[in-house]
Amino acid sequence: MLRYHLFNATVMLLVGLAGLPALAAAQPATTSRPTPTSDELLSRSRPTEWRRPDPRNLLVMQLPGGRVLIELAPDFTPLHAANIRALVHGHYFDGLAIVRVQDNFVTQWGDPNDDDDGDKAKRRSLGVAKRTLPPEYTRSIDPELPWTTLPDGDLYAPDVGFSEGFPVARDPQSGREWLTHCYGMVGVARNIAPDSGNGSSLYVVIGQAPRRLDRNLAIAGRVIEGMPLLSGLPRGTGPMGFYSDPAQRTLIRSVRLAADLPPAGRPAVEVLRTDSPTFAALIESKRRRHDAFYTVPAGKVDLCSIEVPTRSIPARSPATR
Amino acid sequence: MLRYHLFNATVMLLVGLAGLPALAAAQPATTSRPTPTSDELLSRSRPTEWRRPDPRNLLVMQLPGGRVLIELAPDFTPLHAANIRALVHGHYFDGLAIVRVQDNFVTQWGDPNDDDDGDKAKRRSLGVAKRTLPPEYTRSIDPELPWTTLPDGDLYAPDVGFSEGFPVARDPQSGREWLTHCYGMVGVARNIAPDSGNGSSLYVVIGQAPRRLDRNLAIAGRVIEGMPLLSGLPRGTGPMGFYSDPAQRTLIRSVRLAADLPPAGRPAVEVLRTDSPTFAALIESKRRRHDAFYTVPAGKVDLCSIEVPTRSIPARSPATR
Repeated sequence: MLRYHLFNATVMLLVGLAGLPALAAAQPATTSRPTPTSDELLSRSRPTEWRRPDPRNLLVMQLPGGRVLIELAPDFTPLHAANIRALVHGHYFDGLAIVRVQDNFVTQWGDPNDDDDGDKAKRRSLGVAKRTLPPEYTRSIDPELPWTTLPDGDLYAPDVGFSEGFPVARDPQSGREWLTHCYGMVGVARNIAPDSGNGSSLYVVIGQAPRRLDRNLAIAGRVIEGMPLLSGLPRGTGPMGFYSDPAQRTLIRSVRLAADLPPAGRPAVEVLRTDSPTFAALIESKRRRHDAFYTVPAGKVDLCSIEVPTRSIPARSPATR
Repeated sequence: MLRYHLFNATVMLLVGLAGLPALAAAQPATTSRPTPTSDELLSRSRPTEWRRPDPRNLLVMQLPGGRVLIELAPDFTPLHAANIRALVHGHYFDGLAIVRVQDNFVTQWGDPNDDDDGDKAKRRSLGVAKRTLPPEYTRSIDPELPWTTLPDGDLYAPDVGFSEGFPVARDPQSGREWLTHCYGMVGVARNIAPDSGNGSSLYVVIGQAPRRLDRNLAIAGRVIEGMPLLSGLPRGTGPMGFYSDPAQRTLIRSVRLAADLPPAGRPAVEVLRTDSPTFAALIESKRRRHDAFYTVPAGKVDLCSIEVPTRSIPARSPATR
């Protein structure tokens, strides 16, 4: 019984495709060449295929369990990016909490007192940030933005692909494009009024992509590191997954903009460019995956099954700075 | 700021669609009638639209955090159902553990010693259960099985729908059908050899549906209650999400077949029939959702965005038994 021979490179169980490196099968079952693994493709990538996120667009959220990095998407939701920067400059999120984890849907954070059950007198001030914002659910298609189309189409939109690291849907007929609610995407919670979202309460998708939310909510960005700290939390047992007991909430120690940190303290991470040859090869490897374990290639890949890789930049020695 | 007025029925934030009941918006934003919520539809369902799972197909897994119920799918994977029943009759899983949680992919359980790192001498015997099984990745389309087709198609298969409570894909050309890797589906872990899966190690999908696994692994059934106990666990930090520290594993206290429990001790749950009018109405409500909060209906729904409802049967008083 070798069901757990996972640390033996010649045998594998369920090859990891969702973020963690996959172990390669040494013995292909067929004579055709096995599809290269993500690790193999990434190891052959060129340095220029990676980009360091603009520190003005990079949020560093410190939780008791570690660091979550969120890249903002100002080319899609510029007013929301600006408002979130204003909130973060004012240390709005420090000491607030993760208040909701609804299984197969979202994890949400913000001010627990910003609730019917909360203490209105204790609600945190938004400071100089705006209380309402134009919705920014969609934008005009910008032909200047990089665009990598996916070949297999989409159930919900005429065209889908990646732009600047984000999954995007497009409708050429209306001339609109929008960020999509894939795993790890960070949206702006709101009330009924479309302008009531301002970024002081945010959610991240932790289950099957709820694409019905597309064009109904603004998406501010994407978690590029630390998803397990948001997805691996106990689910709330109150309505819609809110924690009924405040003690169940997870404290947010701080949220900072990387640009506000000293350069040496900024996260040393790179994201694979979604207009790079290696990203195109990753997409193809997912579509055609065929190796000793996967004998029936899917032949297709859907937008939300593609994760954009992030990697750490090795710390440089002081002498080379 | 009413961002958390979630217990006020007139205001909602992010309406829950993924299992938990949604609060209704009292004031539709438009003159068109708002789409009924899942709660409204379920409250109008008839008793005959619900079925009690066959106790011979219902697994009761006791974890420290509570109960997980898994419905087996013997019409799709009969040999695997029989082998899992044999393992459970022999109390195979009692005292074993959840050994792997890979973010946005799977939670997996079985014998920690069934691993390269494990102690071979301590591997648990399979008892009378078989060590290898024919793969059962697909089956011939059975026109006798109930079938509810989805109207919007699928990226991966020519036809998709529901049969006996399970999401299913069909290829009329090859005459084959197969269970699909949607959230909550329980698959059979294996090694490279296609016959090496026997049900002694199982996984459940906890993220975006990994449809590339379809037709490459056998699916044994679906979690019909208790998903949060499997999805809300800390992610493993070892390769492919395995727990590198055995102390991180979650103990499996026991797994029993409901049929082996005294009738009074069997789970009192019902599952909505997927060939019922109420299930059809649920699908339509997801496709057309339009209310005060959702102003842009998706117009479509994908197979893995539909969850089949489970509900508790109120305990009967002894007098009525």
